[in-house]
Amino acid sequence: MNIKITGTGSYIPANVEKNEDFHNHEFLNSDGTIIKAPTEVIVKKFKAITGIGERRYAKNHLNTSDLASFAAEKAIENAKLNREDLDYIIVAHNYGDVRHDSVQSDTVPSMASRVKHLLRIKNPNCVAYDLLFGCPGWVQGVIQANAFIKAGIAKKCLVIGAETLSRIIDPHDRDSMIYSDGAGAVIIEDTEDEGGIISHKSATYAFDEAHFIYFGETYNPKIKEDRRYIKMYGRKIYEFALKNVPLAMKSCLEDSQVDIKDVKKILIHQANEKMDEAIVKRFYELHDMAMPEGIMPMSIAKLGNSSVATIPTLYDFILKGELENQNIQKGDIIMFASVGAGMNINAIVYKH
Amino acid sequence: MNIKITGTGSYIPANVEKNEDFHNHEFLNSDGTIIKAPTEVIVKKFKAITGIGERRYAKNHLNTSDLASFAAEKAIENAKLNREDLDYIIVAHNYGDVRHDSVQSDTVPSMASRVKHLLRIKNPNCVAYDLLFGCPGWVQGVIQANAFIKAGIAKKCLVIGAETLSRIIDPHDRDSMIYSDGAGAVIIEDTEDEGGIISHKSATYAFDEAHFIYFGETYNPKIKEDRRYIKMYGRKIYEFALKNVPLAMKSCLEDSQVDIKDVKKILIHQANEKMDEAIVKRFYELHDMAMPEGIMPMSIAKLGNSSVATIPTLYDFILKGELENQNIQKGDIIMFASVGAGMNINAIVYKH
Repeated sequence: MNIKITGTGSYIPANVEKNEDFHNHEFLNSDGTIIKAPTEVIVKKFKAITGIGERRYAKNHLNTSDLASFAAEKAIENAKLNREDLDYIIVAHNYGDVRHDSVQSDTVPSMASRVKHLLRIKNPNCVAYDLLFGCPGWVQGVIQANAFIKAGIAKKCLVIGAETLSRIIDPHDRDSMIYSDGAGAVIIEDTEDEGGIISHKSATYAFDEAHFIYFGETYNPKIKEDRRYIKMYGRKIYEFALKNVPLAMKSCLEDSQVDIKDVKKILIHQANEKMDEAIVKRFYELHDMAMPEGIMPMSIAKLGNSSVATIPTLYDFILKGELENQNIQKGDIIMFASVGAGMNINAIVYKH
Repeated sequence: MNIKITGTGSYIPANVEKNEDFHNHEFLNSDGTIIKAPTEVIVKKFKAITGIGERRYAKNHLNTSDLASFAAEKAIENAKLNREDLDYIIVAHNYGDVRHDSVQSDTVPSMASRVKHLLRIKNPNCVAYDLLFGCPGWVQGVIQANAFIKAGIAKKCLVIGAETLSRIIDPHDRDSMIYSDGAGAVIIEDTEDEGGIISHKSATYAFDEAHFIYFGETYNPKIKEDRRYIKMYGRKIYEFALKNVPLAMKSCLEDSQVDIKDVKKILIHQANEKMDEAIVKRFYELHDMAMPEGIMPMSIAKLGNSSVATIPTLYDFILKGELENQNIQKGDIIMFASVGAGMNINAIVYKH
């Protein structure tokens, strides 16, 4: 028995928010002081580091669970699956449904229950739950689905990553330009087909790192409100990721017994282009190799960082031929790798 | 190999909120109209149906993740475990950390990351994630830990249920008297010892039922605020639970091949005393039996409904001899059963 992804789908929100749309923002330092540079310069610098030129925001009437259901519909169709045959619906997210006009996260019922409702699935034996694991949540959902299939309690699972980060960003924080909305979904099944999940690795660093990404107040001290936003210590995260993600990927690859030269693509969480490149370069350095050209497909320039949604969206784009100069062929070895709030890290070696 | 609970712990918040403390509340119908009965009568009626005489609220400075860590400390001590040997920390909850002075749920980092941080666990291979599955979340966490151990990716797991429902209740809603705060935790390990998890069953009913428990506005139409509260359609839930929970329990018991006469205790989610009794009675009716006396230990009178925390807390109380006239002996067959938001149902047949 092999455990393979048999269908993919993604949903890219309609609203395009360009870097220029931030030119009228007043960006402040974390201590509330004004950043001594014109906003245009801040935005340009941001683009140079993150590679992000634009990002997508969900329309006002749509929430995370809606985005999740749209991506799921496409994955189900792509897998040619009868939805009533699903054993599990796993939705990875971090903030639940946050309405555009509300500051509250709505997590009851779970996103998975909402998605199951929206997909009009009747079968009560299809178990729907949510998984919170920071940005690596979707990869972790795949690892959990794999475990359920191995343990004999599932055969077909729908694993979704969906997020609307546009609803929880502080407009006075430069980092707000990073975040995006989106959803990606896959169907995972046990199959007689060759390939599938070969190895996986997960880690949680919480001793010193738990609060590197956190919920904090606006940087604007003039605003008095009962509201917190997504916040992060960018420099700490960069150093943490550069040190630990390549090692986790190396450990995962060793477990797979695959030669690094046989790795065709690395689909890394679209966090920040410079950081992603540094991680993958370091991964190859650990194997005394230079990073091969084109090994790391990127979608961040146009889609930004949509947390749990970046990897399944990127994967779907490549398989559907929607990413220039990128393709994955049957038998190709690919790696998924992610890092994010928690701080959590994970990786999968997968044969397409 | 058997998979057993090797340690338990619970945390009961310090603040006691008695039924009398609600006498000054103005309870309203869901349409905002005044309930034509003195509040004392409403409270008395509430007690007769739910069996709840008092409930516990967390102190202002404590949040769900704190409660979770307190229960976890006790479970780790009880299991005589080296905490660095844990492979997984699974925290079931539904609303994250909701500070007493805030309306926002804080879910990043995850409760599991926060707990791992508070427990001062260094080992990065201890994977910490949150599970949202309504009130049955803790039972589902046990089922997931069981799957991870069976799949060979874990040996020792910490599974916690923790919630501070006092932070999300509408004071104008009679149902607000149901909810409570608390945390329960267990250690689950693979062991050569006899017994453990024999069978389990999970279900999600979302076609018509997804929004039976939901996030809604206050019943007081005079209050204008951007805030929603836990809300439920009590009658619908009662009918749903009475129809489906006994059948799920029956299916789980059949899978275990245990004779119903050998079931010593049923630890059911402490939702509402009358409903719980009706469910267990119906379960026995399905087996042409009368409900045995003392089969269903209850803690709801003094602890209320603390969602995911009720079953592990109840279990811990019985094992530690803190529940009058109730005990569980080595070799006893017990059942866990739960129902809640989603709508989700689950059950486990377990040999102590």
